[in-house]
Amino acid sequence: MRIEKSIIATHNEKKIESHREQFSFLGSQLEKKNVNADQVIQNLIDFQIAIPSWALGSGATRFGRFSIGGEPSTLEEKINDVGIIHALTKSAGAISLHIPWDIPEDTEALKELAATHNIEFDTVNSNTFQDQENQEYSYKFGSLNHMDERIRKQAIAHNLEVIEYGIALGSTSITVWLADGASFPGQADFRIALQHVQASLQEIHAALPADWRMFIEYKPYEPNFYSMVIPDWGTSLLLAEGCGENAWCLVDLGHHLPNTNIEQIVATLLMKKKLGGFHFNDSNYGDDDLTVGSIRPYQLFLIFNELVADIESNGSYPQLAWMIDASHNLKDPLEDLIQSLEGIRIAYAQAMLINRAELESAQQENNVTVCQQILQDAFRTDVRPIIREARLRTGGAISPLELYREADTREHLIKERGMKSIASGL
Amino acid sequence: MRIEKSIIATHNEKKIESHREQFSFLGSQLEKKNVNADQVIQNLIDFQIAIPSWALGSGATRFGRFSIGGEPSTLEEKINDVGIIHALTKSAGAISLHIPWDIPEDTEALKELAATHNIEFDTVNSNTFQDQENQEYSYKFGSLNHMDERIRKQAIAHNLEVIEYGIALGSTSITVWLADGASFPGQADFRIALQHVQASLQEIHAALPADWRMFIEYKPYEPNFYSMVIPDWGTSLLLAEGCGENAWCLVDLGHHLPNTNIEQIVATLLMKKKLGGFHFNDSNYGDDDLTVGSIRPYQLFLIFNELVADIESNGSYPQLAWMIDASHNLKDPLEDLIQSLEGIRIAYAQAMLINRAELESAQQENNVTVCQQILQDAFRTDVRPIIREARLRTGGAISPLELYREADTREHLIKERGMKSIASGL
Amino acid sequence: MRIEKSIIATHNEKKIESHREQFSFLGSQLEKKNVNADQVIQNLIDFQIAIPSWALGSGATRFGRFSIGGEPSTLEEKINDVGIIHALTKSAGAISLHIPWDIPEDTEALKELAATHNIEFDTVNSNTFQDQENQEYSYKFGSLNHMDERIRKQAIAHNLEVIEYGIALGSTSITVWLADGASFPGQADFRIALQHVQASLQEIHAALPADWRMFIEYKPYEPNFYSMVIPDWGTSLLLAEGCGENAWCLVDLGHHLPNTNIEQIVATLLMKKKLGGFHFNDSNYGDDDLTVGSIRPYQLFLIFNELVADIESNGSYPQLAWMIDASHNLKDPLEDLIQSLEGIRIAYAQAMLINRAELESAQQENNVTVCQQILQDAFRTDVRPIIREARLRTGGAISPLELYREADTREHLIKERGMKSIASGL
Amino acid sequence: MRIEKSIIATHNEKKIESHREQFSFLGSQLEKKNVNADQVIQNLIDFQIAIPSWALGSGATRFGRFSIGGEPSTLEEKINDVGIIHALTKSAGAISLHIPWDIPEDTEALKELAATHNIEFDTVNSNTFQDQENQEYSYKFGSLNHMDERIRKQAIAHNLEVIEYGIALGSTSITVWLADGASFPGQADFRIALQHVQASLQEIHAALPADWRMFIEYKPYEPNFYSMVIPDWGTSLLLAEGCGENAWCLVDLGHHLPNTNIEQIVATLLMKKKLGGFHFNDSNYGDDDLTVGSIRPYQLFLIFNELVADIESNGSYPQLAWMIDASHNLKDPLEDLIQSLEGIRIAYAQAMLINRAELESAQQENNVTVCQQILQDAFRTDVRPIIREARLRTGGAISPLELYREADTREHLIKERGMKSIASGL
Repeated sequence: MRIEKSIIATHNEKKIESHREQFSFLGSQLEKKNVNADQVIQNLIDFQIAIPSWALGSGATRFGRFSIGGEPSTLEEKINDVGIIHALTKSAGAISLHIPWDIPEDTEALKELAATHNIEFDTVNSNTFQDQENQEYSYKFGSLNHMDERIRKQAIAHNLEVIEYGIALGSTSITVWLADGASFPGQADFRIALQHVQASLQEIHAALPADWRMFIEYKPYEPNFYSMVIPDWGTSLLLAEGCGENAWCLVDLGHHLPNTNIEQIVATLLMKKKLGGFHFNDSNYGDDDLTVGSIRPYQLFLIFNELVADIESNGSYPQLAWMIDASHNLKDPLEDLIQSLEGIRIAYAQAMLINRAELESAQQENNVTVCQQILQDAFRTDVRPIIREARLRTGGAISPLELYREADTREHLIKERGMKSIASGL
Repeated sequence: MRIEKSIIATHNEKKIESHREQFSFLGSQLEKKNVNADQVIQNLIDFQIAIPSWALGSGATRFGRFSIGGEPSTLEEKINDVGIIHALTKSAGAISLHIPWDIPEDTEALKELAATHNIEFDTVNSNTFQDQENQEYSYKFGSLNHMDERIRKQAIAHNLEVIEYGIALGSTSITVWLADGASFPGQADFRIALQHVQASLQEIHAALPADWRMFIEYKPYEPNFYSMVIPDWGTSLLLAEGCGENAWCLVDLGHHLPNTNIEQIVATLLMKKKLGGFHFNDSNYGDDDLTVGSIRPYQLFLIFNELVADIESNGSYPQLAWMIDASHNLKDPLEDLIQSLEGIRIAYAQAMLINRAELESAQQENNVTVCQQILQDAFRTDVRPIIREARLRTGGAISPLELYREADTREHLIKERGMKSIASGL
Repeated sequence: MRIEKSIIATHNEKKIESHREQFSFLGSQLEKKNVNADQVIQNLIDFQIAIPSWALGSGATRFGRFSIGGEPSTLEEKINDVGIIHALTKSAGAISLHIPWDIPEDTEALKELAATHNIEFDTVNSNTFQDQENQEYSYKFGSLNHMDERIRKQAIAHNLEVIEYGIALGSTSITVWLADGASFPGQADFRIALQHVQASLQEIHAALPADWRMFIEYKPYEPNFYSMVIPDWGTSLLLAEGCGENAWCLVDLGHHLPNTNIEQIVATLLMKKKLGGFHFNDSNYGDDDLTVGSIRPYQLFLIFNELVADIESNGSYPQLAWMIDASHNLKDPLEDLIQSLEGIRIAYAQAMLINRAELESAQQENNVTVCQQILQDAFRTDVRPIIREARLRTGGAISPLELYREADTREHLIKERGMKSIASGL
Repeated sequence: MRIEKSIIATHNEKKIESHREQFSFLGSQLEKKNVNADQVIQNLIDFQIAIPSWALGSGATRFGRFSIGGEPSTLEEKINDVGIIHALTKSAGAISLHIPWDIPEDTEALKELAATHNIEFDTVNSNTFQDQENQEYSYKFGSLNHMDERIRKQAIAHNLEVIEYGIALGSTSITVWLADGASFPGQADFRIALQHVQASLQEIHAALPADWRMFIEYKPYEPNFYSMVIPDWGTSLLLAEGCGENAWCLVDLGHHLPNTNIEQIVATLLMKKKLGGFHFNDSNYGDDDLTVGSIRPYQLFLIFNELVADIESNGSYPQLAWMIDASHNLKDPLEDLIQSLEGIRIAYAQAMLINRAELESAQQENNVTVCQQILQDAFRTDVRPIIREARLRTGGAISPLELYREADTREHLIKERGMKSIASGL
């Protein structure tokens, strides 16, 4: 199924009057605040977020999975699903593959298919946390950190293979997330484990094409419940610096201990010029993988505040990998992704409204009350009309979620693929 | 210093045009959603929040205090400070006293003074967590839970005395917050401690005038760091039920373990008809006592969602005690309270915009995506114009914080009271 | 495979001399402290812990499963595995079944088999968090809390069926753990959900045989990540009281928010005469399901301190359900269970060494230093010899884990059952 | 008051027989395990822990202070109090001063006094989190991070002054703990704040004498409740590396977010050769400053496991600063320090019992069960007799706490100094 331009046009026609009124009001308000609305819109248009191939089916918890039907069971179908999202939102112009869940067989055909949706191949992801059929050694006790050199070699080789797939598809980066760790005190020697991971990552880094980047993700716990070899940003940075200039840190919003100030980590990594990208999601407890913006929208705004501050101070956009990494147990995965995209864009738009000169001045004077007022004034502004306008200008739907439902998209997908199709992933 | 009506009028005149435009737009939007804006405004007007007498000076951490100057050192000055806030915001029509930090000497004069500000005396608060000069027994090892009956008796007597002060001032409730607990395993017998507290609270409850209520506050840690006798809502409810119908639970937003779902606790206590009131503040880590709405505005909105749902389903307002309980280390305390009032009212107004019929219908169908949309649509709406309108209609300032600053309020207070005046409190 | 008495005898012979020396020293030390060692031993002998049928195979995280081989794939094999553990440790004289993972077909034959191992059938566990083949309605959006009455009825009927299985096997209790909850704000109405669960539990409770008990388990999150309908002990107690005298609260050590004082909850529930039993495990972060005693042995000791205090003050043993609930991803499950049993018994034995008269006296005097000394003196004592002695006196192995390995138990099980057998469970 | 050798001798005489019996049994057990008991004893004798000058009086929470009487109000009295502890325990051979709470006036006299107690001057501590009388600029909004250069200069100058005091006393290191941070989003620019702190620390580092070291402490929150400029080990390491070879990281056990794996941080910093020292204490929730070993003794053991592993692999002792940093609200401070010293030494002794060759071998084979057994076998061993033996061999008391009480130490101190003497500190 594809979302045809005509149904978008019909949808927008119904919505346009109400939208014009709201956008016009917002525009007039922004003008009074000397915000260049057209620039905000252009930035929103340019801001494309990658959809992970494993987020297109129903996710599971360890207690079970509840399928929704019509899930994409081939890579082609996954690309088509991203195509639906991108057609509606005009903000999901990339897909991020996970090997071996998505082995691209005919790369040329895949690239052609993706091109018809105007979708690029973003970061490729390796997997050394599960055993595959016909795999020589098990990752039960680790991969890049393993005490047994043969297993480290196997895991390194897998990463190099993933890079090869990525090259064929036009990707220019690889994300390494390791489940490596220990569930019991004494199980592993922390230092040896870290040294093994450092050496393994150096090998992968050395094999990167010159224009590629490697992202090193951190996570404090799960699936290991005593320690993870890369538990925090400090370890990720230490490893990235130990690898060299093409190694970067990746921040998954759900990978932090309770009460962590994530925006401060973002700021520090930006300052060190080692922030490589994001996995967006939201959470209450741990790696809950909930819809972006569904739980702590103000925190998300504060993270974008750091990003926009960096962009504005450097005069240029940092070359970051933006990706959603959520798991959709209860919602239609495509609906969930549309909501996540909206959550991200709202936070980004709000952050662009912050009056930075005034903020700096208030910070300079330690005027804490006014600092808060300036941030909250941006956050309290209803920016949804400007996001709709950005979609409208690029051919997307004014209300992507409504149109998704009006078009009976899920029903069509079930008709095409059946109720029992299962997407690979967690 | 008093905020004269004339300066409010002058301030509002400058702001009125811009306000009218924003309110008119919001009104038209709400009308399309069948929201009765006048009812929302009336509810906001009726919604008065008590200011605690101890929040009017600079708060301290255990690492020190930084005074701001012009702090109120008498109860009369404290009432005058609340008067300033109420004149500006028209939403702080009550003061909550803390005994013995505020011993009301001449109650009639105090009531007259308060009446000139249109301020009532809300809940009175007892203090058995500090030793006072001339106190016979120390509370070092507890009060209502103490192993020594004489100390329990002393603490009960103090509470009865606080009720007497409250009666004289026209209060109708007392809040009991206990620091009682233990900092080390083994220090106390959990069961004996809880039984002592239950028996002590029963004595206080028995002494309440018929129209009075007693609020039992809970807190998981600090100042005791191993256990508190009333650590959570479950214990608070158990004690309230053990006392009788005039005993209620009080929720301080900062008194929870990391990641607690506070809105669910609110819902459960509402269902049990035992929610007595709130201490509003915000926090990242523990009992941080930060400005309401400064950290987790969405959570605050979700709490008000429960309150509004209860009001709408019962057709009447629950008789709740609404109070701010924050500690202002870095901001001007009066500015901070104005910001807290605004944060509370924004959350309340947003919650009134939720379309409950649609929400119930989406919940009935397990349409999780739409449930989220409905809540977030309300939360994303910029309700500030309607809050300003509520103030405007009752003679308050369109922008209380701006006017507070324009009027050089703090400077006047310093001139009146000096730089070194210190308010009682933490 | 069975552990024959003869190999235990051979094993013990090698160990007996060293054991005698250690036990003799410990005995003399305890005598000086007026501890009745024989009574401690008898209590240890009487203290039997149920093994859950789902802990006998390799557990999984949502990221994958790594099988160990020789896993029990039938209920008979599971009983035999518990038989191995019990033969070695003489402390695992019960098995707890999970329906529908273990449907007992021929109950008489199962009872006979269990009797040959001297094993009883403990609490039966229902499952309404997963969908089974041929199930009419899905539990995707809940079970006892579901908005749709038909699904609540189905879930109630399942519980009644589980009770029937339990009656046939000689069980006298059922544990209800619900995954019911919501992953997003707004998804559910907290109050309606709780009322539905209350009514459903009342129906199950009403159907209990007179000598049966129902345990209501609580958990703050997972698999739902915004709210669980029974998140904490307070809600569990509220529901148990709403059901009646055969409803009790069950404490799973891993089901708490960070930093929760679990021993205080245990004390409060004991005081309310509503503590029904335990699921033992250990954890760093959440429901990690690690080996009991592997992470926080002092906390476990403090929990047993409450239990022993209750026993000693009541002069009788509370009728509690003791069960391990762990998930063994990296260890041989049987080894892990043997370690868990040891961890539990160490904590229990240590708690029996506490001098309660001295502790009460120190508490009475608020002698905090001495209170700590008394607890830590018991905790620092090396009680392993007395635990070995209790095993020795009942025909168990002095070192169960060593003997398990010497006997090549896992290798035998793999030979019997193959490498690919998979046990039902998470 | 001084603890005379004669009363120690008398005390030991009463205890010696029982001790000999226990030590002899433990010695024989260790011998069987090929542990060199004499080496363990010698290591314990060599292991001296600094007492902070501010831990000798009753600590306070922000809710109040309860004095104990006899508190040391001069630096001389503080040295004498450490003298009492050291005489009893022979393990507290150093004092750590805090400027300006302890301004050493006559350094020669102080050194002589300390020498009579056999006490050295350990790390000196600066204080830029409180305002002192006659201080030109306030630290209300920070110190080394302040937006105003004059305030940064003032704070740097204070640190240089502290180093001067330290030189005069024979110290060779300074600990910098900063309260610098922000309590509200937007209050500070994270990057500018961090850059200011980096530059300020570089200035202090540059002024260090060649044989001096600077320790950079981290803390996630309190007294600032939104962000701290140095919140975690990663930031501390980044700053230390930015300063140079005499800058090191300092780990305070209470300065971590919930569930942090502290021993892993210790291992990583040891691997990076940047671990400078410790502040020992224990905690349930945050910076609770409880007695070392009173809450999580197993975690403390795991931390010492890393330290001993490092010592054994390097063949030499890392030059670490060992210090207690606790706050004694409810216990007699001296009793509390004696308990803390005992807790530390127990963990250290246990860690020396770990059979490292066996542990490495089990780790090599991923034998998780055995890894746990090896650690827990050491932890379960009752090592108290060997700690007593170490004290006995150096003239300390077999039971320091008992003797402290038998000698009516606190009563003597009260007689000397009065009930109202107050020690400087928190």
